[in-house]
This record gives sequence, structure tokens and C-alpha cells, in this order.
Amino acid sequence: MVSNKSLAALFEPGSVAVIGASATPGKIGNIIVSNLLDAGYTGKIYPVNPDPGEILGLPVTQDVADLPEGLDLAVIAIPPAAVVEVMKDLAARKVKAVAIITAGFREVGREGYYLEEEIAKIARDNDIALLGPNCLGLIATDSDLNASFATGYPESGHIAFFSQSGALCVSILDWALGNNIGFSKFISLGNKAVLDESHMLDYLAEDGQTNVILGYIEGVSDGKRFMESASAMTMKKPVVMIKSGTTASGAKAASSHTGAIAGSDQAYDAAFRQTGVIRVHDVASLFNLATCFSTQPLPKGPNLAIITNSGGPGILAADATEKSGLNLSSLTARTSKALREFLPAYASLYNPIDIIGDASAERYARTLEVVAKDELVHAILVLLSPTASAQIKETAQAVIEIAEKLDKPVFACFMGDKVVGPGKRMLQDASIPVYSFPEPAIAGIEAMYEYHERRNRPAPAELCIRRDIEAARTVIADARERNALEIVEFQAQGLLNSYGLPVPKTELARTSQQAVEAAERIGYPVVLKIASPQISHKSDVGGVRVNLQDSSEVVAAFMDITSRAQRLRKDAFISGCLVQSMAASGSREVIVGFKRDDQFGPLIIFGLGGVYVEVLKDISARLAPLTLDDAKQMIREIKSFPVLRGVRGEQPVNFAALEEIILIMAQLALDFPEIDEAEFNPVLVNPDGAVVADVRVILAPQEKAAENGDA
Amino acid sequence: MVSNKSLAALFEPGSVAVIGASATPGKIGNIIVSNLLDAGYTGKIYPVNPDPGEILGLPVTQDVADLPEGLDLAVIAIPPAAVVEVMKDLAARKVKAVAIITAGFREVGREGYYLEEEIAKIARDNDIALLGPNCLGLIATDSDLNASFATGYPESGHIAFFSQSGALCVSILDWALGNNIGFSKFISLGNKAVLDESHMLDYLAEDGQTNVILGYIEGVSDGKRFMESASAMTMKKPVVMIKSGTTASGAKAASSHTGAIAGSDQAYDAAFRQTGVIRVHDVASLFNLATCFSTQPLPKGPNLAIITNSGGPGILAADATEKSGLNLSSLTARTSKALREFLPAYASLYNPIDIIGDASAERYARTLEVVAKDELVHAILVLLSPTASAQIKETAQAVIEIAEKLDKPVFACFMGDKVVGPGKRMLQDASIPVYSFPEPAIAGIEAMYEYHERRNRPAPAELCIRRDIEAARTVIADARERNALEIVEFQAQGLLNSYGLPVPKTELARTSQQAVEAAERIGYPVVLKIASPQISHKSDVGGVRVNLQDSSEVVAAFMDITSRAQRLRKDAFISGCLVQSMAASGSREVIVGFKRDDQFGPLIIFGLGGVYVEVLKDISARLAPLTLDDAKQMIREIKSFPVLRGVRGEQPVNFAALEEIILIMAQLALDFPEIDEAEFNPVLVNPDGAVVADVRVILAPQEKAAENGDA
Repeated sequence: MVSNKSLAALFEPGSVAVIGASATPGKIGNIIVSNLLDAGYTGKIYPVNPDPGEILGLPVTQDVADLPEGLDLAVIAIPPAAVVEVMKDLAARKVKAVAIITAGFREVGREGYYLEEEIAKIARDNDIALLGPNCLGLIATDSDLNASFATGYPESGHIAFFSQSGALCVSILDWALGNNIGFSKFISLGNKAVLDESHMLDYLAEDGQTNVILGYIEGVSDGKRFMESASAMTMKKPVVMIKSGTTASGAKAASSHTGAIAGSDQAYDAAFRQTGVIRVHDVASLFNLATCFSTQPLPKGPNLAIITNSGGPGILAADATEKSGLNLSSLTARTSKALREFLPAYASLYNPIDIIGDASAERYARTLEVVAKDELVHAILVLLSPTASAQIKETAQAVIEIAEKLDKPVFACFMGDKVVGPGKRMLQDASIPVYSFPEPAIAGIEAMYEYHERRNRPAPAELCIRRDIEAARTVIADARERNALEIVEFQAQGLLNSYGLPVPKTELARTSQQAVEAAERIGYPVVLKIASPQISHKSDVGGVRVNLQDSSEVVAAFMDITSRAQRLRKDAFISGCLVQSMAASGSREVIVGFKRDDQFGPLIIFGLGGVYVEVLKDISARLAPLTLDDAKQMIREIKSFPVLRGVRGEQPVNFAALEEIILIMAQLALDFPEIDEAEFNPVLVNPDGAVVADVRVILAPQEKAAENGDA
Repeated sequence: MVSNKSLAALFEPGSVAVIGASATPGKIGNIIVSNLLDAGYTGKIYPVNPDPGEILGLPVTQDVADLPEGLDLAVIAIPPAAVVEVMKDLAARKVKAVAIITAGFREVGREGYYLEEEIAKIARDNDIALLGPNCLGLIATDSDLNASFATGYPESGHIAFFSQSGALCVSILDWALGNNIGFSKFISLGNKAVLDESHMLDYLAEDGQTNVILGYIEGVSDGKRFMESASAMTMKKPVVMIKSGTTASGAKAASSHTGAIAGSDQAYDAAFRQTGVIRVHDVASLFNLATCFSTQPLPKGPNLAIITNSGGPGILAADATEKSGLNLSSLTARTSKALREFLPAYASLYNPIDIIGDASAERYARTLEVVAKDELVHAILVLLSPTASAQIKETAQAVIEIAEKLDKPVFACFMGDKVVGPGKRMLQDASIPVYSFPEPAIAGIEAMYEYHERRNRPAPAELCIRRDIEAARTVIADARERNALEIVEFQAQGLLNSYGLPVPKTELARTSQQAVEAAERIGYPVVLKIASPQISHKSDVGGVRVNLQDSSEVVAAFMDITSRAQRLRKDAFISGCLVQSMAASGSREVIVGFKRDDQFGPLIIFGLGGVYVEVLKDISARLAPLTLDDAKQMIREIKSFPVLRGVRGEQPVNFAALEEIILIMAQLALDFPEIDEAEFNPVLVNPDGAVVADVRVILAPQEKAAENGDA
């Protein structure tokens, strides 16, 4: 654990030592001292170097042991082999935080890995907030702290940024310098030996200077902690992140459909969505959203009004709006009436509100004032094309003055660059996001609206799934005893029953005579399925026969199924056949499954059965535990949802029954870490209810089951 | 028709008259003259105004009649009511081209519409190339011509731009001025009374100064001409266009599935795709592609090599590549060997090739030289993060020197802005597209690769569809005689037969006895379908019964179907039932249909039947006439294609049979303009072949049928 006190020492140190400080310009140990001085750091700086003298005017401390006890921050830039000893010395001096710039650890192989583990242990044992190793350092503008070897120091601002890639830190810092983007904190995480993205989220949630957080990660260090930190964080401040390496995933061999479909990138998608982290896929979007969130109030609904002095650009903005999750707002009759009073006859009073090419700043101002009062409108985009009569600076000034009195977000798109430039700079300086073309403005407003929606969702109700865990445990223990890694349908009935899952009437028949008796108890028509612990892909051996109408058909099917299975699978012990009631006609097939993600635990998936899942990959996914809302969304967000809602006058299926099954699947996954994958496939659902018509459960090997339990 | 001579006069005029020239600064008639002078136009300029004297130092011509005969270009900026008379006078003086800046025509209502029609007629009758009205004018940098009232004059360049929106012209010009984008021609089309996008494409195809064409349109004036002009154009030069108003379409009521699904935006998509026009959806993409196409050679394949000095940015670029239609290129053993000789041990020799943070310009140069020689590599992206040791300008210089000797495209991404700025400017000046972040670079290379692929596709073979048009015409004439606007299945058999379409064995039975006889000829099992000219949605009245096994089932079904239809549809005349052979089990249902688009003619669609089309809107579309390639692509580009290719070891369906049916549908649409919509639904296809199992044909009302014929 890293205490808050240590983290505070990292970001707001009263004094900083630079281990490996150098008098030679260009050396990293020199750049760091010089960066500290240039940023105007007012705390005490201790350059540490075995050679006596001065470095950049500061007296050198020759030994770590000579540093004052309880020093806040030490920055280390010495060869990797020497770092362990220095860490021990720093711990002895009760240093609170350390940033290790030095590379040559985990990233270079086995030896480096062990070095890093040793360093991390020293840090953890002594409550040292350890940043890195193999990082650029950190910048905290409100402490005037540049404890990095980066070139350039950003303006102060309200955006915090952390990155797992040092190169991306350098690039983004350089880009920000050219684009006047300010930062509160700028952090290079490096190898994340101790401090990782979760610590940053925890700390920045409480940081008064930060109001939006950006992150670049290639993976999280600890899925569960990330979920907790991110969930807490996003209720306070928006978090926007890039997770790279999206495409090289999910290629692992898997034994269920769920396993084949649900990749690690889907787990990240689910983790971000469930915690409210906004995921973007490129750096431009990252900073677009940062600007939007850090400057404008959140829209309280999806309705956007567009005010424009030209048709074509208005259409472009309307197109982008229609493609987004926003609506082109309607206007109240009162608004239309008020606009009609002063707008010219050719103006369009519908949204986009076209106030025509000769619109003066005053016409923009009056229109904006009227539209902003409309309670149907949640956000406003002011579009200006540099027509001959456009009053660019005056319009910018009018927008600024009106917007600052509003609690609705106002965005501007001044189409162009050179002539509109002065107006754009005025808007930018006044914290109104301004664009050359409309599309990124719409993307920004959409993200802000979604964030607002999520933050205002009522807290989910506590769910209680009734189940008989002991009975379920027996089923799994039986499989373990047989050394089986798979529990097939006829063995899984006990598991399904112990979770109260709806199943078709089912009996195991060991002879054709038993099958007929069972069919008579169940009622015709029935289904027969091969029952063998070794046969999980039943249709591959012709092991399923449906719609059997009478005893003669049942007898024939029993003989056929069992003899064929014996012939095709000489390895298999045939227990007989399962006799099952037929699903009501008109039922839809869906799949409910889960796969245990290495990082985030059980990833629950839902989709329509058959080719929808296999060919179209039309599935939804969430990480357990699930809320009822999660289950509802999972059903509704698949593309083929209309099939469940009913097309051409069909009745909708029983959604509540499906939601229940999804929630039970999540509970099962949480209850039994020793299950690696499970799948109800198909679940048959119709307007009356749903039944789990087949099931497969894949157990983890013994040694992995223990790990799953820890995760 | 507009002759080439007149078009040439518009773009390269030897002399220009400005009708409505004014001495008052700020007036449009003054700005135009001033713009002509400022751009350094060397031809003669005639300001025309009733008041004598000078305008900006040029002697005023008081009457159009006093202009020299055969003048090249007149720019008109006088009130709309006066334009018709001036046009007549200009025609009398044999003026070759006219740009009407004046607004107040078609866009303001009926009166303006008639004025515009009159002006257009004068232009057409006298071979005057008429631009506008209601436009900004035009710029042709190689003629030093600024015949517009735009603010600012762009640099000379190789990009031509035309736009239907004047405001977008102004905005883009302003943006280009701020971003050093040069233009060959810059054209505001306005109301397109005579000259439209097709004329521009025709002219610019031959324009020596232009090597890439950009356009913004809200619609085309003439679909057929556009298809011809664009097809010819894109074989010579790349065309990139925005068509706006994408979302407000296709809402028309329609009587077939095809009609309900195929909107006008899909017709535009098809038109662009079939002609090779690259469609983008925002202005940023428009200019990104313009820069790529106008500076670098086309990649001859999809394989991209990425050279980077940092991991994180390399992953971002690899992610973007994997999501695109490009591949991360493999490298030959020779390349790997050559790289290993000089790259440091930690360098990654796999793509992205990571030459590590301390890479010098020389290391970049050697790597680029080796990789460029690899025959597996078709395009190269050089990524640079501004690490402490990055040699930014030197690396830019090295890339420039190597790239100019290559016939492979080289793109650069210098991550950042301030420090990397000088390097970026060097690359930009040397015509190497350079970016702050990798994603738009990948998008540019992808578009260039696709363009290369398309242009090098072999010319399609001529198709000949055998058919008996006279027999088909009889079927339609019969319907016309009955005043019917729909031809239902049992009446359409003659139509299907005359096109040689494969159909199930089908007979019309008027009595149950005839039905049994027919079933016996056809062979059991059979399908019975209600036959009534008034009933097109047969299932709605329970009018279809499948899998009838014997005569008693046929008799019962016949009685049931016909009596139910009589009861439910008292208006319907019941002809009896169709008796049809059953499709082989395991057949897939697909839909082939067409809908006549107002602008582009028959839009052919293809999709899997049932919910695939209705719910998932998973269809492909092309405009007739189709090539065999078009038909092949239509089948293969739907998302559910794997269902047809076969999943889990199934045989693929008979694609050739499907292609044939699609091509016949296109031919039918071309042969009979009086058909508005038609649909084969379902077509049943299996590995052996395909049959058209149901059909519906919607006729155009008589008056519209004539129009369709002209289109």
C-alpha cells in the first residue's frame, strides 16, 4: 500500500534530491536539475553526486546518507545496477517518494525483472511512493515542479495526464506546447513497479487543480483495483483514456463460443463502460474531450441547437448530429415567435437556425439569447462562415458575453482559419471550445452528454440471487473427482437446479424403455440428446433429435443416437439419453455465457444464438458483478435486439426472464472461481418465459483455479 | 450542351467584363474588380456601369452593347430582375462564359425559379458556359484569375475544389490560407442553372494543372451524366467528395422491403463506389486525402511498414493499421538480416520496426533505405517521437532525400508540435505528408491503396443476358389493362420465364382436384400459395402452406387457404392456389430487389432474407447496369456473407447462380422503365443452385413510367 502522505510528497514535495545529478550539460542528471530550476521550484533542491562542488549553482551532497531525514522526493538517474543500494539508503533516510528515471529493468528481460521486484519491495515495505522505473518523471505545475527530463514545461491548467509510454509523454508535451494546452499534472508511469493508473486516479480525484483526467495505458496493473478507483473517480471528474493494443487480442484457443468471441479488448471496453471512463482511440479525440470537459458545463440532455449564417455548413453539422447520440432540438413556439420578430424573412426558424449570410454580430447575439432560454435546448453550437458581412470579432465577443452567463454549454465553429483566426483566439481564451469544422464539436458535446447521463443514473439496487451453493459445489467436486475439466449437460442439471434456473423438463434414460416412460411423464413431443461425459459437441455425432411425437419415434431415436455415438466416439462412455420437453414453437435462441478475463475476472456475454453470434459477432459484454441495469442494457444493445422485441407485430420476448438468467450467470461466475468458462446455449425465450436448453461448464485446471480465486 | 471552348473561356479567359462594377469600396461590384487586379490578371478587364468614368483606374464601359464581340468571360453582379436583359445582350455580343454572382433566383421561390430557367435557356441556346447564379465566382490560379468576391487568394497548387455551398467555399478558402494549401481551380457552383459537378469533372480531367479533385455537393443535377463523367474522371485522377444531407433521406413510404430499405443516400454511396469517387464525410478528411494524393506515389499493395523510435506511438499506429484495409507488412529474411547488422540489440526487427529512443538521423536513414528495398513493403510510415536524442531536422532531411528517389509512398508522423515543428515544415515543403499523430496518415495511405486497386482492375467483360422481352412486355401490358400497379406471384410466372430465371415447378390450380393433379405431376412434398391479384402479402391471410406430403393434405390445405382468404379479404378475387415444389432442405433465403432512384435510376439490392434485411439492414447495393464484378461484390460485402459461404463445415451456396439472378434483376430494371420496384423474395439458394421462390413487381403510374424511360 502507498499512503496518501507519500503520494502527496510526490506531487507537492517540500524538497527534492536528484540522485545522479551532473554538472555536464546534456546529461540526464543535469537536465533534471536544470528543469527543476527553470520551472521556478521554490523548495530545496539537493543534487547528489560522489564528486564535491556545485551543480548549476547548487551545493552537491556527496552521499545519500547525508540527505536530511524525511525528505519528500528523490529523483534517481543512475545506472540500474546501483539503484537497489540507493533505494535502501533512501529508505533509511525515510524518503517519502521516489521517481526512478533509469531504464534497464523489467523491459530488458529476466535480470531486470528481478532488480525491479527488489526495488518495488523496498518501496512497499517503507511506504515510498515509487514512480517508474524507466520513466520520464513528473510535472506538477501548481507546485512549480518539473521533476522530469522532458524538453519544455507546459502552461498551468486543469487537465491531468498520465501515460504508460514515455515517448507519448514527450510527444504530447511537445504538441501541447504548440497548442497552448495547460496541465495540472503530467505523469510518466514507466514500468509501474509500484504506482500505477489506479493510484493516479485515486490521487487526482481529490486534486483541487485537476478537473479532467487523461490517460494512455497499454494495460492495467490490477483489474479489480482499477474498477474501484475508476468508478469512484468518474463520479467526481471525467476520465478519458486510450487503451492501445486493441487488435492483437482474443486469439487464444477457447472451448466455448463465449471463449472464442470474448477477447481482452472487450473486457477493457466493458471495464471502461461500467466505470464510466470514456474510451477514445486517438490522441486528437483525447484532447478534444479534455478541452470540452475543462471549459464548459455539462449538457443536461441530448438536444442541440445549431445557429448558423450559412446553409452548407449547417447541413454538415446537422448530418454529424444525426449520426451521433444527440438530437437536433425542437424549438418551443415561444422561441419561434421571438425569433420571427427580428430575423429576416428568409431565415430558417427550424434547427439548424439559419440567420443568413449577412448576419451581424447583433443578430447572432439576439438569436443566441432567445435560443438559450428555450427549455427544450440543452446545448448550443454557433456556426460562422466568414461571409463578406460576417463580423468575426464582434460575434466572438457577443458569444463570449452571453455564454458566460449560461449554465448550458456553448460551442463555436468558426469555419476557416486566417480571417476567422482572431475570433477563434478570443473564444479559446474565453474557454469556449472553437473548431474549424463542425464534426469534432458534435463529438465533444455527445461525450459530455453521455457523461452527464451516466453520473446522474440512480444507484443500482442491491441484487440478491437465491441459490444453494453447497449443492452446486457437489456437482463441481464430482467433476474434479473424475479429473474432468468439463461438465456437460446431463451432469450439469444439479448445478442449474441449485441456481433456480428454468430448465425444460429433463430426465436421464439409460434404456429406450426408460426413455419412453420419461417421454410419457414429460409429455410429447420430446427431444432426445446423447448423454456422455466425453461428448460435449452433441450435434457433431448426430446426438440430438427433436420433435419426437410418440413412443415408436422415441425408441427409434434412442437406438439411433446411442449406436451412432458408440460408433463415432469409441472413447466415450455412453450413459444413455436425456429426454427433454420441446420448447414452445416461436421461441428465440439466445446465448448467455462468461469467460474469466485474466485481468478483470468474469466477462459476461449475451447474444442471439446461431449465426448472429458466430458470424456477425453481435454480442454485448459486461464484467461481473452486474447490476440489473447492466443486464437490461446487455439485452438491448445488441444489433439484433429488434428480433427479441418482435418484428411484424410479434410479441416481445420475456425480457425479465432473460435478465434473471444473465444475472444468475454472473453470480455463478463470482461464486465459483474454479469455473473458467460457462455457457447457456441455447437459452430459449418466448413471450411467456425462458429456459436454459443446454449448458456447458469448463473448469480451470486445479492450479489456475486457485489464482482465479485471488483475482 | 456546353462546348469545351466555352468552358475554356471560363477558366482561361483572355478578357473579363464585370457587369455591375462599382467605384464604391466594399460593394460586391468593386470587390470583384479589385480581386481581378490584385491576383495579377494580365488579360483586359472591362468594368461595366451606366455611369461613366473610371473604376480602380480602369475606364468604364457604359453599356454591354459596347463590349467587344466574342468576349471570353462576363461576371454579373446586378439585381436579379435585370439579369435576363443583360444575358440577352451578352448573347448578342457572343460572350462565351458568364458567372452570375447575383442571388435571388431558384433559392427564393417560384418567381426566382422562372427567372433562372429563362437565363439558363439563353445560356444553352447560345453555348454560354454559365456558372451560378447565386455563387461566389471562380478562381483559376494558373490564369492569375480571381473572378470572385472572396476574401483572400490562395496559393497556386494542384488541387481543384468545387462546392455547391458558397459559404463552404469561403470557409475552406480561409482555412487553406491559414494552412498553406494551394489550389489550381476554386469554383463556387451556386444554383447550378447550367454548369454542374459533371461539367467540372469533365473539364478538370483534362486540366494540366490539376492532379486531384475535391468536391462538396448536396445532390447531383443529373445522375446519369454524373456517373459517366465521374467514371471517366477517376481513371485519370482521384476525386474526393462530400455529399451532405446523408441522414434526411429514404423516408418515403414504399411497398416492398427493397423500397423500405434502399434510401437515396445508398444510391449516392453506390454511385460513388461504382465510379471510383472517394466519399468522405468531413472537411478534414477531404484535405487530408488531397494532400496525400497530390504529393506521393500510389502504394501498389496493402502492406505498410512502420519505422518508429518509440513503443507506445508504434502501437497506436499498428492499432490504426489493423483496423484499416491495410496490413502490417511482413519483412523478407534479407531485410531482417540487413537490419540486424546495424540496429542495436534491443531494436525490434518486426513491424512496427522499433529503432529505439536514441535513434539518430543516420539510423533512421539506414533503416528506411533497407526497408524501402523490401519487395513485400508497399508503403512506409516514419514515426518520430521527440526523445532527448532525436535529431529532428536531420531525420527530416534524411527522409526527404531517400523518399524522393523512391516510387513507394513515404509518410511521416513527427509526434508533437513545438520541438518537432521545424522538421515537420521541412517535410511538408518537400511534399511528404506529415502528421502530429498516426491515425490520419493511415487513413490517407488506405485511400490511396484502394484507389490504386480500383484503377488497375481489369475492364469488366460485356455481359449478355438472354431474354424474351416481348413475352415479358405482354405480362406488363396485361397488368396495365387491368389498371393494376402490382404484379403478384401467380401472374409473374411469365415474366420470370421470359428472363430464364430458375423457378420452382409451379402450376396454378383453380380447384382442389387440380391442385392434387398438379402436386402429383410436380412430386411431393409441395407448397400451396393463395393466388389472387389483390393479395400480395400472402402470409397475412394465412395464404401459404408448406411441406404438404400427400393428396389429402393438399386438398385440406387448398380448402383452408381459399376459404380463409375469402373470409378475410372480401374484396379479393380468388383465382385458386399455386402449387409449387418444395425447396431442398438446408437452402438459405436471400433477397434480390431493385428500386428506381429518382436521380440514378435502378438501385439493385442484395441481402440475406428475414431479419437480416429487416432488422440488421445488412444489404449491399449497386446501380444498374451491373458488371459481373459488381454482382460478385454485392454477395460478398454483406456482413452475413459467412452464412452463404458456410459455417461449421457447411458447403458454400452456389454463388454463380446468385450472381446470375442479380444480373438478371438489373437487366429487368433497365429493360422496363415502367417497373418502379421489383423483388425476388425469397430466392432459395443451396450448394446446387438457386430458385426464385416468390416475386413482386410494382409498376409506376403511367405518367411516371414515361419519366423513368427518359432517366
